[in-house]
Amino acid sequence: MSAPKKVVLAYSGGLDTSIILKWLQTEYRCEVVTFTADLGQGEELDPARKKAELLGIKPENIYIEDVREEFVRDFVFPMFRANALYEGLYLLGTSIARPLISKRLVEIAAETGADAVAHGATGKGNDQVRFELSAYALNPNIKVIAPWREWTLTSRTKLLEFAEANQIPIAKDKRGEAPFSVDANLLHTSSEGKVLENPADEAPDYVYQRTVHPEEAPDKPEMVEITFEKGDAVAIDGEAMGPSEILTLLNELGGKHGVGRLDLVENRFVGMKSRGIYETPGGTVLLEAHRGIEQITLDSGAGHLKDSIMPRYAELIYNGFWFSPEREMLQALIDKSQEHVSGTVRVKLFKGSARTVARWSEHSLYSEKHVTFEEDAGAYDQKDAEGFIRLNALRLKLIATRNARVKG
Amino acid sequence: MSAPKKVVLAYSGGLDTSIILKWLQTEYRCEVVTFTADLGQGEELDPARKKAELLGIKPENIYIEDVREEFVRDFVFPMFRANALYEGLYLLGTSIARPLISKRLVEIAAETGADAVAHGATGKGNDQVRFELSAYALNPNIKVIAPWREWTLTSRTKLLEFAEANQIPIAKDKRGEAPFSVDANLLHTSSEGKVLENPADEAPDYVYQRTVHPEEAPDKPEMVEITFEKGDAVAIDGEAMGPSEILTLLNELGGKHGVGRLDLVENRFVGMKSRGIYETPGGTVLLEAHRGIEQITLDSGAGHLKDSIMPRYAELIYNGFWFSPEREMLQALIDKSQEHVSGTVRVKLFKGSARTVARWSEHSLYSEKHVTFEEDAGAYDQKDAEGFIRLNALRLKLIATRNARVKG
Amino acid sequence: MSAPKKVVLAYSGGLDTSIILKWLQTEYRCEVVTFTADLGQGEELDPARKKAELLGIKPENIYIEDVREEFVRDFVFPMFRANALYEGLYLLGTSIARPLISKRLVEIAAETGADAVAHGATGKGNDQVRFELSAYALNPNIKVIAPWREWTLTSRTKLLEFAEANQIPIAKDKRGEAPFSVDANLLHTSSEGKVLENPADEAPDYVYQRTVHPEEAPDKPEMVEITFEKGDAVAIDGEAMGPSEILTLLNELGGKHGVGRLDLVENRFVGMKSRGIYETPGGTVLLEAHRGIEQITLDSGAGHLKDSIMPRYAELIYNGFWFSPEREMLQALIDKSQEHVSGTVRVKLFKGSARTVARWSEHSLYSEKHVTFEEDAGAYDQKDAEGFIRLNALRLKLIATRNARVKG
Amino acid sequence: MSAPKKVVLAYSGGLDTSIILKWLQTEYRCEVVTFTADLGQGEELDPARKKAELLGIKPENIYIEDVREEFVRDFVFPMFRANALYEGLYLLGTSIARPLISKRLVEIAAETGADAVAHGATGKGNDQVRFELSAYALNPNIKVIAPWREWTLTSRTKLLEFAEANQIPIAKDKRGEAPFSVDANLLHTSSEGKVLENPADEAPDYVYQRTVHPEEAPDKPEMVEITFEKGDAVAIDGEAMGPSEILTLLNELGGKHGVGRLDLVENRFVGMKSRGIYETPGGTVLLEAHRGIEQITLDSGAGHLKDSIMPRYAELIYNGFWFSPEREMLQALIDKSQEHVSGTVRVKLFKGSARTVARWSEHSLYSEKHVTFEEDAGAYDQKDAEGFIRLNALRLKLIATRNARVKG
Repeated sequence: MSAPKKVVLAYSGGLDTSIILKWLQTEYRCEVVTFTADLGQGEELDPARKKAELLGIKPENIYIEDVREEFVRDFVFPMFRANALYEGLYLLGTSIARPLISKRLVEIAAETGADAVAHGATGKGNDQVRFELSAYALNPNIKVIAPWREWTLTSRTKLLEFAEANQIPIAKDKRGEAPFSVDANLLHTSSEGKVLENPADEAPDYVYQRTVHPEEAPDKPEMVEITFEKGDAVAIDGEAMGPSEILTLLNELGGKHGVGRLDLVENRFVGMKSRGIYETPGGTVLLEAHRGIEQITLDSGAGHLKDSIMPRYAELIYNGFWFSPEREMLQALIDKSQEHVSGTVRVKLFKGSARTVARWSEHSLYSEKHVTFEEDAGAYDQKDAEGFIRLNALRLKLIATRNARVKG
Repeated sequence: MSAPKKVVLAYSGGLDTSIILKWLQTEYRCEVVTFTADLGQGEELDPARKKAELLGIKPENIYIEDVREEFVRDFVFPMFRANALYEGLYLLGTSIARPLISKRLVEIAAETGADAVAHGATGKGNDQVRFELSAYALNPNIKVIAPWREWTLTSRTKLLEFAEANQIPIAKDKRGEAPFSVDANLLHTSSEGKVLENPADEAPDYVYQRTVHPEEAPDKPEMVEITFEKGDAVAIDGEAMGPSEILTLLNELGGKHGVGRLDLVENRFVGMKSRGIYETPGGTVLLEAHRGIEQITLDSGAGHLKDSIMPRYAELIYNGFWFSPEREMLQALIDKSQEHVSGTVRVKLFKGSARTVARWSEHSLYSEKHVTFEEDAGAYDQKDAEGFIRLNALRLKLIATRNARVKG
Repeated sequence: MSAPKKVVLAYSGGLDTSIILKWLQTEYRCEVVTFTADLGQGEELDPARKKAELLGIKPENIYIEDVREEFVRDFVFPMFRANALYEGLYLLGTSIARPLISKRLVEIAAETGADAVAHGATGKGNDQVRFELSAYALNPNIKVIAPWREWTLTSRTKLLEFAEANQIPIAKDKRGEAPFSVDANLLHTSSEGKVLENPADEAPDYVYQRTVHPEEAPDKPEMVEITFEKGDAVAIDGEAMGPSEILTLLNELGGKHGVGRLDLVENRFVGMKSRGIYETPGGTVLLEAHRGIEQITLDSGAGHLKDSIMPRYAELIYNGFWFSPEREMLQALIDKSQEHVSGTVRVKLFKGSARTVARWSEHSLYSEKHVTFEEDAGAYDQKDAEGFIRLNALRLKLIATRNARVKG
Repeated sequence: MSAPKKVVLAYSGGLDTSIILKWLQTEYRCEVVTFTADLGQGEELDPARKKAELLGIKPENIYIEDVREEFVRDFVFPMFRANALYEGLYLLGTSIARPLISKRLVEIAAETGADAVAHGATGKGNDQVRFELSAYALNPNIKVIAPWREWTLTSRTKLLEFAEANQIPIAKDKRGEAPFSVDANLLHTSSEGKVLENPADEAPDYVYQRTVHPEEAPDKPEMVEITFEKGDAVAIDGEAMGPSEILTLLNELGGKHGVGRLDLVENRFVGMKSRGIYETPGGTVLLEAHRGIEQITLDSGAGHLKDSIMPRYAELIYNGFWFSPEREMLQALIDKSQEHVSGTVRVKLFKGSARTVARWSEHSLYSEKHVTFEEDAGAYDQKDAEGFIRLNALRLKLIATRNARVKG
């Protein structure tokens, strides 16, 4: 790979990406463009601009954008149509944000004539894979620079020395090492590393940031009604809202009731296991409600097919293959299933749990007439079950007859 | 089908199966053998014996058995090795009990020279299918009698008239109709019908029988440690126990903390949707713990394969195909995966939720050495990730290049 | 089910459906509408009109239609996009025609105010299921009459007596029983029953009707070039053609070279095994060519996903679920994959086989630059493979280390 | 990776691996152990011993073994139980041999105290992955040396110069470059590269080595009867034989009739497409026969489950994951299905094709009694089909009713 001339850096404004910014300038003597996105991580973006300016980035090379609406509408919601869970439990909060960032990095590279993009993910994790697969899928000729895999700043001490030597301001609380590492966006907060590294040790209380402790959550349950149209949430308690507004409100509600905590040991794509603490309050409520509305609007054929491909879909997103033909094929299948997934679900929030307690829809396939224990006025002929069972049993009988014969 | 001569009836001792007993005697003039099983449903079995005698069943034709150990060991535990959930949520508490009952019915038929078995499931539900597929798979020549699909006792009034006309004792509380229908065993209590038939109406509090209301559960969390060997729970809080003992204790613990409630609209095999309220306290804790121990002892290849076949496995059990070659093939796959699923998980129970907070094992694949944010002493070379990503990206780059070419 | 008033009958003009026609008139005293379709079965349709008139059907109630173009365009081609094979070998020639017939039956019922449809499939086969599932899916209130399951004409003798008693003309060659049963359309000819019923006996030569015996096929191979656009064949040897024209020509070519014979024992949906002799000359060539063009235009992610869902897709079509949400969802996935499946394949036909020998496309993903044994000018860095392998191996090493530890 | 001290080399005796042998000695100054396996590639092994001695390998460090029986029994046959085909067509002839070679390399390393193994696969192909994943899975601490990824001998000229400089004998016909590259073992011959690199060009006739041209094959078909026990072939034409004997004989028979040629463009695991010409005469006959016997001995539940997991199983073998938990889990599933896959199949060989024409078995599930067009004496009640269809249709009717309602 020849040396990059102009690099678009995914820049948070924090110490680590500021060091990367400087390192790119000194190592490659290249122009740096910074991209700072508001994904709902809950941090001010203004300081990022100031810091970028301080580090010599030209104003026209500083991109700061609120991408929350795009994030929820084009990434989070399509994924939730699938009820995606990685390894049965993880709501993919970090995984789903990476392709959007890469997409903007590659687009900004095109706008600014940059030939490379750079990110601050380490060589051990999944995020490097997600960033880079997305970037290459969108621009096969882009260069990707991953300083953590390249440089020699392999200890905290060296990093701080480099920062000091390069006049990078170091916040007081960054002198010492954080007791764990955090990633956050509108969908979730993820914490890992350091004090969390032993999966036999319970996570300390101070790790949780976005949800109250279930023990301290309100003593009274709270109900929330979520309305869906074609698989996407469109209203809360009867009030229509945009995607990011909905997720923001569900985060508030879920967080207040301690909903959405997960302590997980998962398998990284790069081959090792890691332990993460995830907080996904709004997403957990949303998944529960989406399942609730599918229960009455999807038939078994559609639902079981969705269930059967879901693990693969989730794995693709986890592994960084959002921009791949197979993810898009699965999305086409999933989206096709959502045409009638419209209606409203009531979810009860209480001390760490979110449970569907009622659901109704114009599109419901539930037929009280058929299922009732009462007289059904001929809706269903119980005699039909006899033939149904007999023909389902036929092959089993043939097997039993054969087995008796060959053993006999 | 020629008329049966001797029938083994799945007999609970309750009003409905007593009416069936009498009806078999009068309709077919056949000898009846009763089979009453203790599956952990929490009812005395002695009254069943007395009632059977009262209805003229010969003592040698009355089978009353405690099958709890067999139930948990040979049915529940193998199923839990798969983390089986039907339609994402249902723990299959009723489905998994039916094959065992059928197995005993068929075995008793062989012992007693009976040519038929009979059950009290209706023509609208899944249980008829489960009973009969199991029976036919185990004895292809057995006759199955399902009175609810045959007789003309199609209303409560007619049933009571028949009972009275035949001197069948009617408990006072059975005069009126129950507000919903219940099935119970050591794994769960299921309630459905009547007051539960509208999925838009919340289930009344009085429906729940096995779990305290989360609001009324203890204000302090409780920890429980479950130890597994080869995928099966073998000890609680360090004390070794047999399968049914373990499930009984977990039911107590889970029930006390309001764990394991589910309000679900599901797709029946016979083609309609139904709404059920399930309480599976011990099973919910066990599933959480089993996932927790798999997190550190199964690698991603094994785990993802299991996840991908789980929906099919659960569907087979739900639909009544326990005794089918494909269920046995999937079981072989699942059992193969459990060889190292041994270790201990700590689960926190609180106000309706059960969450893994710690897990450890001699068989752990978790490698702190590899995952650590600290120096890893060469366990992992971050440079490897570069080649890994590049080759994973290669096909995506080729696609992007092609797409640009054909559009260009 | 109340008695039908007006019935649309799938009418071939042959003896069996003529008997059905008369039986409907006499049994139900209902008006009969006949629908006779040219699906490419190679029979004149005019006699069907005359016979219908003879049996008293009003001219406006006689529907005779050439549906070959719709058949290939909307049913055969979409299915071939999936490379669908039932049980690894069967090209689904009969299965794919049934939904089209049902669709027209239901549409004609709507046009003519009929309340029922009828078909001539027996109660043992798959076709009854396919006809009826399609009909119910398109009109949930339609009545379906399946005379073979209802009437008492259960032997050849009784059928002929009924025909004679009702002045139904009997062709001389229909007096005796056919030695096997045939279904044909533009995609295939299927033969089964009678002389074919023992799968240990080779099928007699006279069973084959659409393909020459490979031994008698030309001694020289013949090449055919098939051009695809978005997964569908659009030209043969450079000449653009419509769907049914293409399949007709491929049938000629394939049939001449003895291509597309299959002797199969398959599993019917109704639970029994049956043995069929299939001749699918054009379809076999088309499948081979479609695979050939996908080889260079689909990447592995798309291709492997398609392969993994294909068996389920084929099973759905075989079982009669063409008009089901899950088939439509899978179709959406498959169609999405075909956007770049364009290009040309050369297939060699010879003595019973059809084999791809060359393929080329503007949309090719094949990169000689990458794969070459020669110098690749940096297209591919062999060092990348090292990291790729190491990270793929990481979990396997961790397993081996664990296994050694717990055994040690 | 520290320098290896003693290396076990997969040594063919050919020029390339002789160069590698010398290079290992000179580059790493390490002791070399050679392993030469007779996998049925059809070459004498004695010359390999002489050449190894000539290159200074100590007699006790020269391992020459006939592993054909192990190859077929423990690798080929288990794979054929699954009817494994990669990308629908490839019989995995090369893929399945690699794990065996790696297994012996690792075992010999343990026996001889070697700390490394080496292979002659390039950095572009799948074989490096297969060798190395297998080696690491069997010994996580083994070093793997892949000279083609390391050295600077990147052109034919440099290789020959190195050979001359090191007194490595060069056969006359190796001076020039081979027009394509070959891999062979008892299962197949694979050819790729050079003259085959353009998939739009037909493969020249001289590429084929193991099969006669179909045009030149005998003008009369030949029948072969293959007997299976539990999924494995055990006899040909009634004569019991061992695994490798069977495959050898089937190769002869198939090869004589031009059976088993395949021209394929496939997706390599490393991300690029390649074109290969495969000849798998015996394997093609075996696959056809195995399918034939499964047709009558496997029921649909078992067969369809097998079909659905086959692509994943094949992909695992292709990608080199033979020694992985997920392959072993799938094998457990497959093996479980084969308990009754016993019986005999007659296959007709003719001018490039192998087709099942008859099959019979004590374990057959085929029931002429059920399927017959004749009177079936009550084996099957056609009325049962009505209920079967109605309940299968129920959900489709509910969907149609819903869709009409919401559109109406």
